[in-house]
Amino acid sequence: MISCVIEQMNHFLTLLETSPEEIRHVLEVAAQLRQHRDEHGDADLLRGKTLAMYFEKPSLRTRVSFEQAMYELGGRAIVFGKQEVGLGVRETVADFTRVMNGMVDGIMARVYEHAWLEEMAEHAQVPIVNALSDHCHPCQALADIMTMQDDFGEDLSGRSLVFVGDGNNVARSLAAICAKLGIAFTLACPAGYELAGDYLATVRRVCPEAELRVFNDPRAAVEQTDAIYCDTFVSMGQEEEKKKRLRDFAGFQVNEDLLAAAQPETIVLHCLPAYRGVEITNAVMDGPASRVFGQSHNRLHAQKGLLAVLMGQA
Amino acid sequence: MISCVIEQMNHFLTLLETSPEEIRHVLEVAAQLRQHRDEHGDADLLRGKTLAMYFEKPSLRTRVSFEQAMYELGGRAIVFGKQEVGLGVRETVADFTRVMNGMVDGIMARVYEHAWLEEMAEHAQVPIVNALSDHCHPCQALADIMTMQDDFGEDLSGRSLVFVGDGNNVARSLAAICAKLGIAFTLACPAGYELAGDYLATVRRVCPEAELRVFNDPRAAVEQTDAIYCDTFVSMGQEEEKKKRLRDFAGFQVNEDLLAAAQPETIVLHCLPAYRGVEITNAVMDGPASRVFGQSHNRLHAQKGLLAVLMGQA
Amino acid sequence: MISCVIEQMNHFLTLLETSPEEIRHVLEVAAQLRQHRDEHGDADLLRGKTLAMYFEKPSLRTRVSFEQAMYELGGRAIVFGKQEVGLGVRETVADFTRVMNGMVDGIMARVYEHAWLEEMAEHAQVPIVNALSDHCHPCQALADIMTMQDDFGEDLSGRSLVFVGDGNNVARSLAAICAKLGIAFTLACPAGYELAGDYLATVRRVCPEAELRVFNDPRAAVEQTDAIYCDTFVSMGQEEEKKKRLRDFAGFQVNEDLLAAAQPETIVLHCLPAYRGVEITNAVMDGPASRVFGQSHNRLHAQKGLLAVLMGQA
Repeated sequence: MISCVIEQMNHFLTLLETSPEEIRHVLEVAAQLRQHRDEHGDADLLRGKTLAMYFEKPSLRTRVSFEQAMYELGGRAIVFGKQEVGLGVRETVADFTRVMNGMVDGIMARVYEHAWLEEMAEHAQVPIVNALSDHCHPCQALADIMTMQDDFGEDLSGRSLVFVGDGNNVARSLAAICAKLGIAFTLACPAGYELAGDYLATVRRVCPEAELRVFNDPRAAVEQTDAIYCDTFVSMGQEEEKKKRLRDFAGFQVNEDLLAAAQPETIVLHCLPAYRGVEITNAVMDGPASRVFGQSHNRLHAQKGLLAVLMGQA
Repeated sequence: MISCVIEQMNHFLTLLETSPEEIRHVLEVAAQLRQHRDEHGDADLLRGKTLAMYFEKPSLRTRVSFEQAMYELGGRAIVFGKQEVGLGVRETVADFTRVMNGMVDGIMARVYEHAWLEEMAEHAQVPIVNALSDHCHPCQALADIMTMQDDFGEDLSGRSLVFVGDGNNVARSLAAICAKLGIAFTLACPAGYELAGDYLATVRRVCPEAELRVFNDPRAAVEQTDAIYCDTFVSMGQEEEKKKRLRDFAGFQVNEDLLAAAQPETIVLHCLPAYRGVEITNAVMDGPASRVFGQSHNRLHAQKGLLAVLMGQA
Repeated sequence: MISCVIEQMNHFLTLLETSPEEIRHVLEVAAQLRQHRDEHGDADLLRGKTLAMYFEKPSLRTRVSFEQAMYELGGRAIVFGKQEVGLGVRETVADFTRVMNGMVDGIMARVYEHAWLEEMAEHAQVPIVNALSDHCHPCQALADIMTMQDDFGEDLSGRSLVFVGDGNNVARSLAAICAKLGIAFTLACPAGYELAGDYLATVRRVCPEAELRVFNDPRAAVEQTDAIYCDTFVSMGQEEEKKKRLRDFAGFQVNEDLLAAAQPETIVLHCLPAYRGVEITNAVMDGPASRVFGQSHNRLHAQKGLLAVLMGQA
């Protein structure tokens, strides 16, 4: 039922090390699995396989979508957190990984320090999946692109996405996946919140034809775009600088005014959770351009595609 | 193997919105599933279905009975707590529900604020199950009635139950289910601990023939009853008023003296955990009238009936 | 596929109440299941069975190995902690056990007070498994012996093991399993860290031919041994006396010097997590004598054997 092109992907860490063909393959498998789910329920691609799910920081969408993904693929998940592992305190990341190698078939980790994922990958004999690090959020980006495909078709080359907000981990992964797939990526942010130059340089080195732009004027940024993307202005852990951030991002709210500056078919995305009335208004989030909840459901589908390719036969 | 009368129940929130026929059907399916379990093990009514289990407050019996119920029905559970969701803080209840709609097949929630369950139900495309709110505890009431059926037969109309204790969430659900099924309900409590008049009025409006009484003398209350029910005098969160409560409830302990005032075939129920020596004595809890542990096991069976009806084909 | 000698083991608490034949049978089933896993994946010995896993203290290896063990045997696990249960606070251990009796097929508990396990066993109608108490760690000992068998063959009588470190719960279980299987056990520790005399007397009473020795000189201890075992010098909860312990255990590090005093074929074991550079050096832990990670993987395999025997038909 699912096309079985076995890929040589080992880990899924930043999207930069994943080829455009691999990304497209994951998304294709994801779409097939989504359709299979509607028609037949569970697939059976990871029967007998276990994903260890490590959360250094709790996370609803990531938690439910990954655990459910394993279930729907016929597999299972073992979920644990900082308290169980004492990672980096009671035990080194390398030793943790060496122990897991003999027990499970894959490791999903949501960590602060991206370097920990790299250390896991170095010692792992099973796939390592970045389920969110302070550096990037590649699984979210897969779901986001899948959501764009739902509107604009499978081939998104030549399309464009504007991320209105802070040049954070979500923005980094969107820049990377857009570069890989030929989508123009624009960051619309106040001065001082841009993506770091060395990150952009790395993306450009890996994808020489990447279209990456920065605008400090959100209206100008969204004029010709296919998708407007927003995220909270204040992430967990940034509560202290909250006031400053809210002041700096005044004018970057995704509201009906901003949407009026875009095209009629422009869609609106948000990785959730949303602070309604802050970075996005109710009118937009619940309006006809919003794909926000379908996008959240695509977390499940995109990750099923990813896990099926990394851990299975897909 | 299981009778397949498809009911139109959508959610299970307070028992007041559930018809007597639906309640009886759930209990019948529950009893069938319990027998099937003894003879054949797992049933397969929820194969491929997932229940999201949200705990704002940790809970042993509810946790184990619901997770095990899903397993025994061939399904699975995803368990998370306050920390993962930040419900009402990081994300609105409505948005949480909209996300869950696309990932799981039902949501069980143990919350403080009953209004959250109503908000979930409003936005849910999957069944919402109240696994305990500060307002009521309808799943406990199902197990309690199932336990009475084990002694007194399927038809309990004309039977009676006396709840000795505070007019709390457990008492509210017992009043409701008794009203629905024609069982006389008596609350035996010190003055000041009665069920609120507006709640009783609501029950009476929904079930005009409900027999609902209050006694401030526990001995008089239990004289003619089929079942005596007790619960802790001091619930979680009431530690501050503990002294006052223990003083007020002196005389309401379910002990051999009180039991001597009842009929020989009167049974004793308790929703657990019990503070032995406080609201109930060891002699009663471990004595011949006690159905306490069978009642706790019926949590599993009753909830299997409920889930099979709400999420499946039963 | 698996030899089906049904044993009369009920619980697994200290190894002292388990016969040598039962231990050997568990290890044999474990080895068969490990081979079956390599060739065929999951076994199906505990289909439809649920293990309740209670953690009073979080634990990575124990958590993952037991949950995965249940999965690989076709069963499932329900994991909960102190917060859910309020064991000994909100509810007595006996009542907890009586409730669990009707819901699950076995209970694994990691507790501080060993007496709680005994109280569980007293009231349980399902097997109780000690997954680590302050008194002993019998599941770890099973994995350790399985690891010795991998090097020295199934029959270990006449072999020897030296535990270099504190006479703690891990040491106690090693002493017990060695006594049961005819392996000479030596504790190499600073004065004041020996196993208590009454524990050794109990082991000797149960196994009159037990060879149990204590050395205060680690070099002399390891000269003729088949296996050197180490554990952290400072366990969780002993942080206060950390300085004193590190001073007392100076000279007991398992390093290349110590290893040079042993035989060429001597293997090194560690129950992990390891404080590299404290009780063991990188050179030894990552060197040719180390069986440390295979040993950690044997936690999974040994516990599969145990669970299959206790809860299943093996």
